[in-house]
Amino acid sequence: MKKVGIIMGSDSDLPVVEKAINALEELGVPYEVHVYSAHRTPAEAKDFSANARERGFGVIIAAAGKAAHLAGALAANTTLPVIGVPVKSSTLDGLDALLSTVQMPGGIPVATVAIDGAQNAGLLAAQMIAIEDAELAAKLDAQRKAAADKVLSKNKAVEDKFNK
Amino acid sequence: MKKVGIIMGSDSDLPVVEKAINALEELGVPYEVHVYSAHRTPAEAKDFSANARERGFGVIIAAAGKAAHLAGALAANTTLPVIGVPVKSSTLDGLDALLSTVQMPGGIPVATVAIDGAQNAGLLAAQMIAIEDAELAAKLDAQRKAAADKVLSKNKAVEDKFNK
Amino acid sequence: MKKVGIIMGSDSDLPVVEKAINALEELGVPYEVHVYSAHRTPAEAKDFSANARERGFGVIIAAAGKAAHLAGALAANTTLPVIGVPVKSSTLDGLDALLSTVQMPGGIPVATVAIDGAQNAGLLAAQMIAIEDAELAAKLDAQRKAAADKVLSKNKAVEDKFNK
Amino acid sequence: MKKVGIIMGSDSDLPVVEKAINALEELGVPYEVHVYSAHRTPAEAKDFSANARERGFGVIIAAAGKAAHLAGALAANTTLPVIGVPVKSSTLDGLDALLSTVQMPGGIPVATVAIDGAQNAGLLAAQMIAIEDAELAAKLDAQRKAAADKVLSKNKAVEDKFNK
Amino acid sequence: MKKVGIIMGSDSDLPVVEKAINALEELGVPYEVHVYSAHRTPAEAKDFSANARERGFGVIIAAAGKAAHLAGALAANTTLPVIGVPVKSSTLDGLDALLSTVQMPGGIPVATVAIDGAQNAGLLAAQMIAIEDAELAAKLDAQRKAAADKVLSKNKAVEDKFNK
Amino acid sequence: MKKVGIIMGSDSDLPVVEKAINALEELGVPYEVHVYSAHRTPAEAKDFSANARERGFGVIIAAAGKAAHLAGALAANTTLPVIGVPVKSSTLDGLDALLSTVQMPGGIPVATVAIDGAQNAGLLAAQMIAIEDAELAAKLDAQRKAAADKVLSKNKAVEDKFNK
Amino acid sequence: MKKVGIIMGSDSDLPVVEKAINALEELGVPYEVHVYSAHRTPAEAKDFSANARERGFGVIIAAAGKAAHLAGALAANTTLPVIGVPVKSSTLDGLDALLSTVQMPGGIPVATVAIDGAQNAGLLAAQMIAIEDAELAAKLDAQRKAAADKVLSKNKAVEDKFNK
Amino acid sequence: MKKVGIIMGSDSDLPVVEKAINALEELGVPYEVHVYSAHRTPAEAKDFSANARERGFGVIIAAAGKAAHLAGALAANTTLPVIGVPVKSSTLDGLDALLSTVQMPGGIPVATVAIDGAQNAGLLAAQMIAIEDAELAAKLDAQRKAAADKVLSKNKAVEDKFNK
Repeated sequence: MKKVGIIMGSDSDLPVVEKAINALEELGVPYEVHVYSAHRTPAEAKDFSANARERGFGVIIAAAGKAAHLAGALAANTTLPVIGVPVKSSTLDGLDALLSTVQMPGGIPVATVAIDGAQNAGLLAAQMIAIEDAELAAKLDAQRKAAADKVLSKNKAVEDKFNK
Repeated sequence: MKKVGIIMGSDSDLPVVEKAINALEELGVPYEVHVYSAHRTPAEAKDFSANARERGFGVIIAAAGKAAHLAGALAANTTLPVIGVPVKSSTLDGLDALLSTVQMPGGIPVATVAIDGAQNAGLLAAQMIAIEDAELAAKLDAQRKAAADKVLSKNKAVEDKFNK
Repeated sequence: MKKVGIIMGSDSDLPVVEKAINALEELGVPYEVHVYSAHRTPAEAKDFSANARERGFGVIIAAAGKAAHLAGALAANTTLPVIGVPVKSSTLDGLDALLSTVQMPGGIPVATVAIDGAQNAGLLAAQMIAIEDAELAAKLDAQRKAAADKVLSKNKAVEDKFNK
Repeated sequence: MKKVGIIMGSDSDLPVVEKAINALEELGVPYEVHVYSAHRTPAEAKDFSANARERGFGVIIAAAGKAAHLAGALAANTTLPVIGVPVKSSTLDGLDALLSTVQMPGGIPVATVAIDGAQNAGLLAAQMIAIEDAELAAKLDAQRKAAADKVLSKNKAVEDKFNK
Repeated sequence: MKKVGIIMGSDSDLPVVEKAINALEELGVPYEVHVYSAHRTPAEAKDFSANARERGFGVIIAAAGKAAHLAGALAANTTLPVIGVPVKSSTLDGLDALLSTVQMPGGIPVATVAIDGAQNAGLLAAQMIAIEDAELAAKLDAQRKAAADKVLSKNKAVEDKFNK
Repeated sequence: MKKVGIIMGSDSDLPVVEKAINALEELGVPYEVHVYSAHRTPAEAKDFSANARERGFGVIIAAAGKAAHLAGALAANTTLPVIGVPVKSSTLDGLDALLSTVQMPGGIPVATVAIDGAQNAGLLAAQMIAIEDAELAAKLDAQRKAAADKVLSKNKAVEDKFNK
Repeated sequence: MKKVGIIMGSDSDLPVVEKAINALEELGVPYEVHVYSAHRTPAEAKDFSANARERGFGVIIAAAGKAAHLAGALAANTTLPVIGVPVKSSTLDGLDALLSTVQMPGGIPVATVAIDGAQNAGLLAAQMIAIEDAELAAKLDAQRKAAADKVLSKNKAVEDKFNK
Repeated sequence: MKKVGIIMGSDSDLPVVEKAINALEELGVPYEVHVYSAHRTPAEAKDFSANARERGFGVIIAAAGKAAHLAGALAANTTLPVIGVPVKSSTLDGLDALLSTVQMPGGIPVATVAIDGAQNAGLLAAQMIAIEDAELAAKLDAQRKAAADKVLSKNKAVEDKFNK
C-alpha cells in the first residue's frame, strides 16, 4: 500500500497532527511523520516532497499555522495530492492559516480540510488510497457505519432523557 | 480508469465548473457532469453519491455557492474522496461558501479548493487517480513542467522590458 | 397542539439545545428531541424530516456547529418551517456555523437565530404555533410582559445605586 | 387566512422586497406592504407591529440594510413571528445587516434569512401559515416538486452537453 | 450643566458601563443611569429618549451587545447626540455590536466608540458639553495633560530598565 | 455659533465629504473645510487641531480611508469632540478605515459614524452644537419630522401600488 | 548602490508592481524585475533569493495574490529584508493575500505593506538602502516635502472653493 | 552601527515588545526603548521620530494595539524605515491593529509584521542594518542555520517516536 507522508511545520502542531496519525493507524494505512518547516528548513521540505512519489508515498498531509505555506510549498514540488490542515494559533482564530492554505493559485491544488481538522486529513488520505484498494474502502465503509451507530446510540440516550 | 463525477448545485455554476471539465479533458481523465442540488433534489444527489463507487467513479467534485452544503451532502453518502469548490455569489465574496464547504465535522472530510478554484479541483481529482496510475502521473508532471516554462517565458518578457 | 421537533447534530450541542427545550417546557408546547447528524446519519435525518408533518410536527429546530448543514438538510425534505441554531465551536467564533445556516439558496428557507441562540429558537417555534393558537399567544404576551418587568426591576436597582 | 405584513425600511429596498411579494402572490397568501423606518418613523413601525395580530396578521417580514434594526424593532412590539431580511448596501457586502438582524438577544427572536434573501422570507412566511393550513402546505409541496423538476431538466441539458 | 443619560440594555453590561460613570464622576459632569432594553422595554427606552432634552439632558450614552439596537433606537426619538458603546458578548468578539451600532442610515447618527470603550464614551459626552463650558474644557485639558505625564513617567521607567 | 472644522485626508475624499458640508449648509451651521493628511502634512493637521478651540471651532469632522489615522491624530491634539468618517477605498470594503477610526484607546475618543457616513457626521456635529442652542435644536427636530414625512409619503406610494 | 529585486508571482500582477518600479526609478535606485512563482517555479524563486545578496541585491520586493506565499518563500532562503505586497484578486478583497503575507512565523520576517501597496514597497526598499546612504535619504526627504506641498496646494483649492 | 529605536504605545505592550529587544540583544544590535503614545504623547512621539536619523538611528520599531496609529505617526515624521507590530488586545483578535498598521496610504510606508510578531520586528530591523554590514549579515545567516538545525533535531525526535 502507498504510504502517507505527514509533515508538520513545527512540533508544536503535534497535538493537532496526532489525530491524523490515529486515523491512519486505526485503518492500517502506513505513514511517516516529519517536522519540516517551509520557512526554516525549506530544503528538507522540498526534498521530501520532490522524492515522495518514488519513495512510495501516495499522499502528503501538511499541517501548519499562521501564514501556513507548508502545504503549498510541498505541493509545488510534487504532483501527489497534498492535503492541508490549517492550524489555529494565538491570533485570528485560524482564519489566517485557512486562507493561506486553501486559496492556492490555479495549477497547484491543496486539498484543504477544516481548521485543526487533522482527523479528517487522515481519513481523506485513506479515501484517496482506497480509490484502488477495495479492502481499505470496505474498512472506511465499516468505520462510517460504526460512527452512525454511535450517533444513533447517543440519540437513544437523549430520546430516553427528554421524550416522554 | 476510474471516472470523476462533477456535480454542481445549479447550472448557474457552470462557468466556474467548466474549468474543472477542461482540466480533466486535457489530461484524458473520464468524467460525468450532473446538476444535483443538495436542497432542491436531495434524493438524486444522495443516489448519485451512494452508488458512485460501484458505478466506477473514483472521485467526486462538488461545486456550490452560499450555504454550500453540496460537497458535504455527497460526502455523507460515500467514502470516495469528495472535492468541494466554493462558488462566489453576490454577497460576502465567497466567504460563506468557503466556510460551509471546508469546516466539515470529524468523520466526513471534504477536500476543499479555493473559491471558484474549479481548475484545481479537476487537477486534484486527477492527482488522486494518478496515485496508482503512473501514466497519468507522468502527464501531470509534464503539465507542471509546461506551466513552469510558461512562467519562465513570461519572466523573459518582463526581464527584457524592465531590466537594462 | 402541533409538536416541535428539536434535532441536534451531536450530543455535544446539548448544553446549547437545552435552552430551546426549557423555552418550550415553560410555554407548555409539546416537543421531541433527537440526535441526528446531517453527515453521519443522513438517512435518519432525512426520514425524520420527510415524515415530520404527518407525524404531527409543526416546526423543526436544528442546532449544529462548523459547516452546519443540519438545518438545511432537514429543510430540503419538508415544507415545515425549519429554525436553524448556529452553534459556536472551537474556531472562528461561530461565524462558520452562522453563514452555513443562514445563507440558504432561494427555495429552501431556514429561519436562523443568533449563534448559540437556542432560547430564541424555542420561542420562535412557539410563536409560529401561536399564529393559530390564541391561548399560546396570550402566554407569549404574558411572558414578554414578565421579561419587561424584570428589566424594569433591574433598572430600579441600578437607579437606586447610581442616581442621587 | 392570516395576512403577511411586509415592511421595508426604505423604498430603495423594494427591488429586494418584491421577491417576497412575488413568492406570496404565487402561493395566494394575502399580504400588505409598507415602508416604515425603525429610525425615521419609529412610531409608525411600532404601531403597525403592536396591532398586527389583532389586525389579522400572522407573520411579519422586515427588510433593511446597514445597522438593520427594523426586524428587531418590530419584534420588540409583537409576539407574532418576525422574519428579517438583511439587505446588502454599498459597504461591507451585507455583513453589517446580517449581524444586526440575526444576533438578537434572548427573548426577542428574529427569523433571519440570507442577505437579500427575500424570496425565502416569503416562502418561510407561507410555511408558518401552512402549519395549520393543509391546502397551503400542499401548494408548498407542489412548488417544491416543481423546483426539483426544474433542476432535473437543467441536469438533463447539462448531461446531454457534456456526457458522452 | 446639562446631564448625561447613561442607558444600558441589560444590567450585565454594568461592568463595562461603570467606566463611563467613573469618567463623568471624575469630571464632575452630572448623569443618570438606567437599564432600558430596546427590545424588552421599548416603551421605556422611547420615553426616556423622547423627553431627554426637556428633562435637562445634553447627551445620551447607550451601551449594548450583539445586535445592539439600543443607541439607534434612542437616537430615533431625539435629536440630542447619542453615543453608542458596542459591548463584546460571547460570540464574534464584539464585531456584531460594533456594526449594529455604527452602520446607521443617513439622518440618524450614532457617535460610536470602540468595543467596550465606555471610558471614552464618558469623555466624549463631557467633550460635547464642554463645547460651551470653558471650565469643563479646562478640566479635560488638565486630565489630558495628566495622562500624558503618566505615559512619560512609564517611559522613564522603561528607559531606566532597558537603555544603558 | 461655534464653527465645525471639516478635515479630509485627501481631496479624493471630497465626494464623500460634501455630504457633511451639505448637511451643515442646510442647517446654517458655520464650517471650514481643509485637506490635511495625518501622514503627509502632520504638522498642519496638528496645528489646526491644537488651535481649533481658540479659533472658534466647537467640533471637528475628519474623513479618511485605509489606515485612517486622521481623526485620531486630530483628537490627540484637542479636547474638542472629533467625529471620524471612515472612507471606503479599493480594498477591504471600508473595514480597515472603520477599525482604524473607531478602535481608539482609552483617553482619546473619536465619535465614529458609518463607513462613508459623512451626512451623519454633519448632523452629529450640529447635534453637539445644538446642546446649548435651542434654535438649532428646533431646526434639527423640524428636519427630522420632514424626513419622517418623506418616508410616510413613500409608504403611501408603495401602499397604493401593492395593497388592494 | 545595492539593487532592489522585484519579484512578482504572475505577470498579471504587473499593473500593481509597476508602481514599485516607478517609485524606484524616480529615486534612482537600481532594480531588477522578475516573474518567479513560489508554486510554479519554486526552484527559480529559491535560486534568486539564495544568491541575491552576493549578486548585489540589498532588498527584495515580492508581490503575489491569493495564498500569497512568494514573499515568505523568498524570505526562507535569504536574510536580506523581504518586502511583501499582497495583491487583491477576484475574491475576498485581498484579505487572503494580506494574511498569507504578513502572518509569518517567528524567525522569518516579511515586511508587509498595504494590499496593492506597491508604491510603498518601492519607497520602503529605498528607505532601507538609505539607512547608509545620506544622498538617497535626502532625496526621500525632498520627495516627502514635495508630497506635503501637493497636499497643501490641494488644500488651498478646497479652501478657496468652500470657505468664505 | 546604527541604532534601532523601539517605541511602544503603552507599557502594557512590554511583554510583546521584549521579544524584539531580545532579538536585537542576541545579535548585538544597539537599541533604545521608549514608551510614547501616538495619542497621549503625540509631541514626544513626533520629536523622537523627526530627530531619529540625526541621533544615529537606522530603523524604528513601533508596537501598538487597537486603532494602532503609532507606526504610521512615527513614519509621518521620518524617512527612516518604520516597522509596525500590531498588538492583539481584548477584542477583535488583533485584526484592528493589523489593518490600522498595514493599510497605510501611498507615500508613507510601514513595514508590518504579524500580530504580536515582535521577534520578527527585531530580526527585520537587523536585516535592514545588515544590508551594509557583512558581519551582522553573517550573524543572521548563522542564526538562521541554527534555527534550521533546531527544527531538524525536533524532526529527529518526532521520527524516532512515530516512524518504525
